Amino acid sequence: MEGKKGQLLEVEQAADDLLADDLDLLVIAGGYGPDKLRTDEGVLRLVRELNEQDKPIAFICHAGWVPASAGIVGGRVVTSAPSIADDLRNAGAEWKDAEVVVDGNLVSSRGPDDLPAFLRATIELAARTPAVA
Amino acid sequence: MEGKKGQLLEVEQAADDLLADDLDLLVIAGGYGPDKLRTDEGVLRLVRELNEQDKPIAFICHAGWVPASAGIVGGRVVTSAPSIADDLRNAGAEWKDAEVVVDGNLVSSRGPDDLPAFLRATIELAARTPAVA
Repeated sequence: MEGKKGQLLEVEQAADDLLADDLDLLVIAGGYGPDKLRTDEGVLRLVRELNEQDKPIAFICHAGWVPASAGIVGGRVVTSAPSIADDLRNAGAEWKDAEVVVDGNLVSSRGPDDLPAFLRATIELAARTPAVA
Repeated sequence: MEGKKGQLLEVEQAADDLLADDLDLLVIAGGYGPDKLRTDEGVLRLVRELNEQDKPIAFICHAGWVPASAGIVGGRVVTSAPSIADDLRNAGAEWKDAEVVVDGNLVSSRGPDDLPAFLRATIELAARTPAVA
């Protein structure tokens, strides 16, 4: 498929063809792509399944829309791009202004400046999560 | 100010300098601009004031994020770009899949294809709303 600026990207696997059993963790990138991802039932189903298996789900910036639409942030502590804090709070989350928030299997960060903390926390969480597959 | 593609735009008035008394109606355009508008306290205050005065507020596509963050959609019937339907529902609205929805002083549409119906409904509502100023 072709990216917004013409980059070619090879899609190796559609979310629809994946089971949570196939993955050890999921990292959802930010930008406005999540505005489209959240409308994909395959993506939402995969996020729910991973969450049920307590596998790490990491999301940064605007990616929080995906777990919000998957309905898995109720009662969880998260962060995100500040502009979507209302969407996460309204989805039942407690929103925290921090470079990274880890709550159980969820890792979240606000934006690009937080990438070092985000990736460090994601790798640490993945390292101590036994692969279920 | 400069638009995303370099267009120059003259800002005549900041939301912060406006009162609801200054306006007869507000039309909030779509795209991803509302992701920024919703973080502007002046915009949110203006939207709340207009709503209290029962003046028409029209929003299309992703613009629904602004009334959602202003906290004025609870118990109201609205539509929007389908991708943000969850955000409007979670903000307390009843979301309807229609080219245009009018609920009291709120007019909303899903996207560009709905523009004729959106503008017609907005003009009709504005025409029957007495100017309060």
